Amino acid sequence: MKAVNMEDRLREFKESQKNRGRLLISCPDRPGIVAAVSKFLFQFGANILESNQYSTNPQGGTFFIRLEFECPDLAAKEAILKKRFEEVAKSFSMDWQMTAVQNVKRTAIFVSKELHCLRELLWEWQTGDLMTDIVMVVSNHEEARETVESFHIPFHYIPANREIREEAEAKQKQLLKEYDVDLIVLARYMQILTPSFVEAYERKIINIHHSFLPAFVGAKPYERAFQRGVKLIGATSHYVTNDLDEGPIIEQDTMRVDHKDQVQDLKKIGAKIERSVLTRAVKWHLADRIIVHENKTIIF
Amino acid sequence: MKAVNMEDRLREFKESQKNRGRLLISCPDRPGIVAAVSKFLFQFGANILESNQYSTNPQGGTFFIRLEFECPDLAAKEAILKKRFEEVAKSFSMDWQMTAVQNVKRTAIFVSKELHCLRELLWEWQTGDLMTDIVMVVSNHEEARETVESFHIPFHYIPANREIREEAEAKQKQLLKEYDVDLIVLARYMQILTPSFVEAYERKIINIHHSFLPAFVGAKPYERAFQRGVKLIGATSHYVTNDLDEGPIIEQDTMRVDHKDQVQDLKKIGAKIERSVLTRAVKWHLADRIIVHENKTIIF
Amino acid sequence: MKAVNMEDRLREFKESQKNRGRLLISCPDRPGIVAAVSKFLFQFGANILESNQYSTNPQGGTFFIRLEFECPDLAAKEAILKKRFEEVAKSFSMDWQMTAVQNVKRTAIFVSKELHCLRELLWEWQTGDLMTDIVMVVSNHEEARETVESFHIPFHYIPANREIREEAEAKQKQLLKEYDVDLIVLARYMQILTPSFVEAYERKIINIHHSFLPAFVGAKPYERAFQRGVKLIGATSHYVTNDLDEGPIIEQDTMRVDHKDQVQDLKKIGAKIERSVLTRAVKWHLADRIIVHENKTIIF
Amino acid sequence: MKAVNMEDRLREFKESQKNRGRLLISCPDRPGIVAAVSKFLFQFGANILESNQYSTNPQGGTFFIRLEFECPDLAAKEAILKKRFEEVAKSFSMDWQMTAVQNVKRTAIFVSKELHCLRELLWEWQTGDLMTDIVMVVSNHEEARETVESFHIPFHYIPANREIREEAEAKQKQLLKEYDVDLIVLARYMQILTPSFVEAYERKIINIHHSFLPAFVGAKPYERAFQRGVKLIGATSHYVTNDLDEGPIIEQDTMRVDHKDQVQDLKKIGAKIERSVLTRAVKWHLADRIIVHENKTIIF
Repeated sequence: MKAVNMEDRLREFKESQKNRGRLLISCPDRPGIVAAVSKFLFQFGANILESNQYSTNPQGGTFFIRLEFECPDLAAKEAILKKRFEEVAKSFSMDWQMTAVQNVKRTAIFVSKELHCLRELLWEWQTGDLMTDIVMVVSNHEEARETVESFHIPFHYIPANREIREEAEAKQKQLLKEYDVDLIVLARYMQILTPSFVEAYERKIINIHHSFLPAFVGAKPYERAFQRGVKLIGATSHYVTNDLDEGPIIEQDTMRVDHKDQVQDLKKIGAKIERSVLTRAVKWHLADRIIVHENKTIIF
Repeated sequence: MKAVNMEDRLREFKESQKNRGRLLISCPDRPGIVAAVSKFLFQFGANILESNQYSTNPQGGTFFIRLEFECPDLAAKEAILKKRFEEVAKSFSMDWQMTAVQNVKRTAIFVSKELHCLRELLWEWQTGDLMTDIVMVVSNHEEARETVESFHIPFHYIPANREIREEAEAKQKQLLKEYDVDLIVLARYMQILTPSFVEAYERKIINIHHSFLPAFVGAKPYERAFQRGVKLIGATSHYVTNDLDEGPIIEQDTMRVDHKDQVQDLKKIGAKIERSVLTRAVKWHLADRIIVHENKTIIF
Repeated sequence: MKAVNMEDRLREFKESQKNRGRLLISCPDRPGIVAAVSKFLFQFGANILESNQYSTNPQGGTFFIRLEFECPDLAAKEAILKKRFEEVAKSFSMDWQMTAVQNVKRTAIFVSKELHCLRELLWEWQTGDLMTDIVMVVSNHEEARETVESFHIPFHYIPANREIREEAEAKQKQLLKEYDVDLIVLARYMQILTPSFVEAYERKIINIHHSFLPAFVGAKPYERAFQRGVKLIGATSHYVTNDLDEGPIIEQDTMRVDHKDQVQDLKKIGAKIERSVLTRAVKWHLADRIIVHENKTIIF
Repeated sequence: MKAVNMEDRLREFKESQKNRGRLLISCPDRPGIVAAVSKFLFQFGANILESNQYSTNPQGGTFFIRLEFECPDLAAKEAILKKRFEEVAKSFSMDWQMTAVQNVKRTAIFVSKELHCLRELLWEWQTGDLMTDIVMVVSNHEEARETVESFHIPFHYIPANREIREEAEAKQKQLLKEYDVDLIVLARYMQILTPSFVEAYERKIINIHHSFLPAFVGAKPYERAFQRGVKLIGATSHYVTNDLDEGPIIEQDTMRVDHKDQVQDLKKIGAKIERSVLTRAVKWHLADRIIVHENKTIIF
């Protein structure tokens, strides 16, 4: 694969986005929220470029808003903006998060032997469609090394299985700290994470898994889907919580199959859906488009 | 709704299809099946118009074929064709079924209070896109009567619930016999059928139900799908067996939803998928396009 | 078709939406627009329920916003709200439109002989999914009369063709005035409208027509699409302007076809796409979700 | 990109498919064709694995069939099979083509500066989903060299433009002959081919181009699609004939866009559709699934 100068691209992106900010808010709904927030941004000379909102119920529900804005000299003003916004936030009991777009998120990808999701992420990253710093790839196998290193990304082989889970996670945590990672993408990483690991990275771990109608819970799902003659197979991407595969869903999709498709074909089609569903989920997270509320996501 | 002369349409259809036949075969795979069958049809002057086949495995698997053919004077020759085909069938251990297209199937629709699937079937039937004789509609409620009777189709109200299930089914069976019914479509009929009823109409009862990824088995599925924030909802149409909702799947589909969709919206979208999925499944059955093998369908 | 009491439904809808308003704005982009508008609404005690915005370019482009709000006593305050908003509008050079949701739009449907689009609109209207008053149907043929009258909607037969176009339009305009029509839906109305008619109902006439890749401009498009073996056929719904079929596109869709589909099949599939595309376009218009800018639409 | 041993894979494929053959036939429709062909194959001990047929009209139309079969010792029997089939073919006035699956087609890819289609083809080829020998890539630019050579595929830079078209094509033809090429894929090769070149490779050149509803013929199509506010953009893959972009369509697809998508976004989405549409078209050609009839394709 042709070497692309990713550092140049990142530098260009940061320069072009240096005044761009994003604000994500959840709070009890009541009149005046939008007025207060937009007045606040206006006072700092910020122009709102994109705004999306949703309320579970105008009477007593929860209100969500995402704003993307352009603010002259954002880098210089960021600290003061955040400090001053505290007051607005307090008066409306807001959960909020303000990010400067140029502070590109730092991503670690965890993978086992199947590389289709990893490859899609690397491909999209290389063509500039996945705006993040992929700072490392961690794997409990060696299969991905050559591909990863051809992209000049550090590859860390850390053996992992049920017996050495905590030892493996200790090494992983050490690396995550060293690389100052913001987001962990489980791109077909076939190991269960411990509760303490998951808690340490709450809403910062995105997973992908196959999905069927009906679900075939347990072993050999593709074999059973084949025996049942399903006409659709799908995939679900979600934030990882300590309820196995029960975290907030970010994205789902399905594709048609028919009786001619053998187990092997179903798996190939499944891989195709997984890679596109995971990539969309990761893009939305990187663009700060997701708010988690209870066990569901609001995608703006 | 404008009265359409359905009898004229049926007569026209029968006339235009009077020499059209269909042959569905399942048998152990081995060389020579297609040669034998096509030679047989050729000897009767039949021209094969459409042919589809599938084999689970050329070495020792099961072979399936569907042929649609035009045979001069089919009505006169039908009996002899079937009798003679017995020999071919025996030598290849075939399960087979030969139908004259002009013998349009006679359909009964069972419905409860929700009418969206019933309406779609009636609509498609009226516009000539569902080639069947809808000989009656049976319901355990009165909601559908006015709609059904406006199409000049007999409507039979038969109360049904857990307590009077056998009594209700006795009446239903009586009607099914009187009307000489070939196919029962459960268009949101919210009653469970007894094993003896299901056995009496094996592979002749088509059902529709909602489907999600993951499945939300049990009560209030839409409410739980909403709480989980699913991004897709779907529907599955299948043949009814005595394994509840576990019969061979005929068709499935999904549609996208998002966080703005309330439970009520999910149900509306669900209804839209249900009506189109059920209608496709019924059309394929009516066109003799489905072979059931073990617990799955081959759709040609 | 079962008679549904549409008047009761309308009354219920109006009651439930009596405090609901919508505001659509286009203006030169500059900081402070959202702040000013949301402050304005807040001063009247209005709670913003939904907000969507788009800017062609934050530096010197055009800004668009759609707000849906709940304002206590809206009916009583509507006049004063509009009057006061004039000032805000003037200071930002806004084009704007404020509507009370309970003032349901009054729709006339024009149709010729093909009824699929008309039927879909009536169906959606009857099930409560198309919130409008269908005040009349106008046709240059009698085919639709029975269907329309079964829904208790006035049907007006007005012969029309190239020779008597102005005479026909004079009658149509008279009726449109009498019925106080807000929206004209051309549901396969096969007559060209004169420039003066179109100008009188600028951005208030929605049309539907078939679309292919590539386009087959001129006569017999389905025949030519068939000969070319297209794999997709589509439909486009747009506002009518005096550039034939060149008005702002509201919605488009396609469906797959294959070599087995004859011209007749292509037309049926085309009809299916047309009815769903037109219905979506009409729904968005009725919900004040469309802003026209130059020759394109912004759909919120 | 990890070096994969493509030669090993090819060898495995050839070994596993060594008895697999395909037969494509077009001829005037009349009874007995299927019987004759299947009897013929049966006599050679061949088992039909897949069979698809289509007739434009059983009375006097054209009949098409594609058969895939397993024939013991195919390599040894191939010549005699073809010779003997001549007689069957003659008696039914057949156009036909028999291929041994293990004779994998040799493909040349032509590309200019945009690499998205080339990359998709290489990706699918590398993962084993595009069963062909990519024997060379030809380009009138140097952009693709590094990518191509990283896959160990010969890259040939041949400058080309209107002035030196014939000179360029002479070099290309020389290479096509040397590499014994069966299929030329124009993967965004932005040069027009001369009539003599096209004729030399009739139905052996596959092209991809953008498509819109309506078409925007001429310069800057994406810019004009943007100005018109299209809601769908698409792509068409077709065999190249001397009617520019008017050859038989193999595959088409569309994706949704909206008002937020700038020209640059439309182009990215267009690239995504182009790469998947072209890849599907090439796969069908490689699997001998396409019969061209007049100016359209039958895809089995």
